[in-house]
Amino acid sequence: MTVSTQFELSKEYLERLKLAIEEKNVDFIRETMEGVNPADISAVLEEFDGVDSKYVVDNLDTAIGAQIISDLEEDTRKDFLKVFEPGEIAQFIEIIDSDDGADILNEIPVKIREKIIASLDNEEKVSHLLDLLRYEEDTAGGLMAKELIKANINWTVIQCIEEIRRQAENVEKIYSMYVVDDRDKLLGRVSLKKIILSDDKTKIADIYSEDVISVQTFMEEAEVAATMQKYDLVAVPVVNLQGKLVGRITIDDVVDVITEIAEQERQIMSGISEDVEEDDNLWVLTRARLPWLIFGLFGGLLGAKVIGFFEGDIKKITEIALFIPLIMATGGNVGIQSSSIIVQSLASRSVFEENTVKRLLKVLLVALINGIVLGIIVLGISYWIMDWQNVDFAVVVSVALFCVVLLASFMGTVTPLLLNRFNINPALASGPFITTANDILGLGVYLVVVRLFYAI
Amino acid sequence: MTVSTQFELSKEYLERLKLAIEEKNVDFIRETMEGVNPADISAVLEEFDGVDSKYVVDNLDTAIGAQIISDLEEDTRKDFLKVFEPGEIAQFIEIIDSDDGADILNEIPVKIREKIIASLDNEEKVSHLLDLLRYEEDTAGGLMAKELIKANINWTVIQCIEEIRRQAENVEKIYSMYVVDDRDKLLGRVSLKKIILSDDKTKIADIYSEDVISVQTFMEEAEVAATMQKYDLVAVPVVNLQGKLVGRITIDDVVDVITEIAEQERQIMSGISEDVEEDDNLWVLTRARLPWLIFGLFGGLLGAKVIGFFEGDIKKITEIALFIPLIMATGGNVGIQSSSIIVQSLASRSVFEENTVKRLLKVLLVALINGIVLGIIVLGISYWIMDWQNVDFAVVVSVALFCVVLLASFMGTVTPLLLNRFNINPALASGPFITTANDILGLGVYLVVVRLFYAI
Repeated sequence: MTVSTQFELSKEYLERLKLAIEEKNVDFIRETMEGVNPADISAVLEEFDGVDSKYVVDNLDTAIGAQIISDLEEDTRKDFLKVFEPGEIAQFIEIIDSDDGADILNEIPVKIREKIIASLDNEEKVSHLLDLLRYEEDTAGGLMAKELIKANINWTVIQCIEEIRRQAENVEKIYSMYVVDDRDKLLGRVSLKKIILSDDKTKIADIYSEDVISVQTFMEEAEVAATMQKYDLVAVPVVNLQGKLVGRITIDDVVDVITEIAEQERQIMSGISEDVEEDDNLWVLTRARLPWLIFGLFGGLLGAKVIGFFEGDIKKITEIALFIPLIMATGGNVGIQSSSIIVQSLASRSVFEENTVKRLLKVLLVALINGIVLGIIVLGISYWIMDWQNVDFAVVVSVALFCVVLLASFMGTVTPLLLNRFNINPALASGPFITTANDILGLGVYLVVVRLFYAI
Repeated sequence: MTVSTQFELSKEYLERLKLAIEEKNVDFIRETMEGVNPADISAVLEEFDGVDSKYVVDNLDTAIGAQIISDLEEDTRKDFLKVFEPGEIAQFIEIIDSDDGADILNEIPVKIREKIIASLDNEEKVSHLLDLLRYEEDTAGGLMAKELIKANINWTVIQCIEEIRRQAENVEKIYSMYVVDDRDKLLGRVSLKKIILSDDKTKIADIYSEDVISVQTFMEEAEVAATMQKYDLVAVPVVNLQGKLVGRITIDDVVDVITEIAEQERQIMSGISEDVEEDDNLWVLTRARLPWLIFGLFGGLLGAKVIGFFEGDIKKITEIALFIPLIMATGGNVGIQSSSIIVQSLASRSVFEENTVKRLLKVLLVALINGIVLGIIVLGISYWIMDWQNVDFAVVVSVALFCVVLLASFMGTVTPLLLNRFNINPALASGPFITTANDILGLGVYLVVVRLFYAI
């Protein structure tokens, strides 16, 4: 994929590397990793344990090692850093951007964290890190890096170029310079393109653009992501309450936030209660899954209790049992569809809140259509195709199904809206919680309809 | 949020704008939208129909109008452009980037599309658009824009600056220049930072970096997204089979791809068969939902048929009916959890395929633990807490539940792997299809276990 370095990651390479680590074959490691993108080396090291990985990193440039460590996945890195001394970790943190440095410090026990900070030589870095550690991790303050290039409004272009030269080492990616006044208040931005195309003596005040979109330190990361996505930004300046420029968020971190939010949602919808991956150990996998399974189990036992009330009815009309799966499955499907549409609607953060009554009316209409269609199909099939002579009962099932569709639509719509109102992630409404609740309610409705018809 | 233009989008503003459109109050429109970010205006117009929106756009600068239209959501834009003449649409397409232009043309019926292309003045734009229309929409070729800045390897820095000046109007966002040979073959890149910091006479050959990551035109968009995310890129050059530089993909388009993929996955998991939003009309909403509901209905009827085989047993032991919900719910929950973990594992595109046997063994182990824990809980509760005297039957339920957990884990693991093998989206395995299949299988297992125990 790269033009220069074709690094083909293969199982064979992995095995040869494993052997090289065992045999302490430093040449093999250095030669095969020469010029390879650190992100590719990180992907390799995800497959090794901390001790082996440390051996590889120890034999590469510190700068490469620092990049590798900042590219590792959080879980891997946590294990990984346990085999490093605080002083070694400090060396890496000296090199990488302050936002990645703060992330790493946040993953480390407080005692070791303090030792690492004490080992740092660069005083500016220390003050940057201490500043960043103050912010909640899932806010703009927690996402931002302190490295950025700012220009005073009174400067000329040549002064900007000098500043870029001075900071070139610290700030790897520069897209534009932020323009500030003497008190560091953010006034606007000027793109590198404009700096290149302007005469050296041009005043920044004459070429900068006041149209800069900024975010405040306390803005939630999901909102930062939505803002950058809406306005197609690659970087956004972060200001404090006084409007002072305090940091910069780049799009690569926001892309990671977007991916994480999507993964979290999938986990919530699937009834997995913490961030797990297939290669986690048995204990982690079980711990993430059992709580919701047990919850579902109690739901099922409650369902048994509900059916228990109608045991006498079932003794008389065994057909009742036949349609339990049909009722439950349809209720579940309708509920998840409804909540999913609402969750999406909430996630897209439309500026204008729909009128709740109008919203519910529409849901009701869709439910009516679905309920009627499904009811007719069940009636037709159970009457003509299947060999149940009991036509009356087909009508009962059909009516019960219709009621369950209406109820599940209502629950699926109202639950995410309520959760959202109480600042709980509305995606929970598409998970096992709502499915279980819908199952029991659906069963109840079904059995009550049966009883009403037969006045048993 | 912006420093300069605080545009507060409110319901009041929306109503006043509606009135202004009716009264043809051009001054109100121009004054309130002066200096507002086009993305904000697009958000406003999402709330209006095509005719009203056209009135607003007609009274703004063409450049602003073009930006507004490229920022609109696809569905809105489709309706919206119906009220414009081909010549008017051509005016917008002249201004916006070629990738957005090609997207718009792809949304328009072929006949009108040809009229629009015929109305374009800029010949280079026409050739760009015709080139882009050749690619599949969900590949790198379909995502890329033709606008980019390239430098010949033999140039000096001053020649690069001249090129930037020449292209400044066409290429809005410049992060780096791509270095090519005389035949346009991609050789590397040079950042704007480096150009600023180098002497005018420096040769590009001396300062460019060969380490450039590129993608090929036919690469799937999900893979492009993964590549840009892995290497933290804000733009990636696109090359054809001969290695010739043909376009550039910027991160904003990839962020949209990532969001879309996540939304699609949520829809698939929820049994919604097309891209719908809450504000779509009844017909669209019903069409997206009914197919899966009907599918689930047939699953439920099949379940009824399965239970039907055991109707005699239920007549004798009514307790059988009580635990149908418990068995179904647990099977469903276990199946979705298992498939979700596999889907995530497939999506993270780990380079090393896990050994399938090892994978299944691990799944089996987790299932054993879950199955045993759930089995014991059910046994305990139904024996001590609930008032079913039938201890034997509690054992039967417990064993059946254990079997269902194993089976559902297996199905939930194998289904996404199989789907993926046949290039079908594995997320389907967490949707209604697998739930329905699991329901019926689980019921079958349960009833067979019951019969085996009682040898009815």
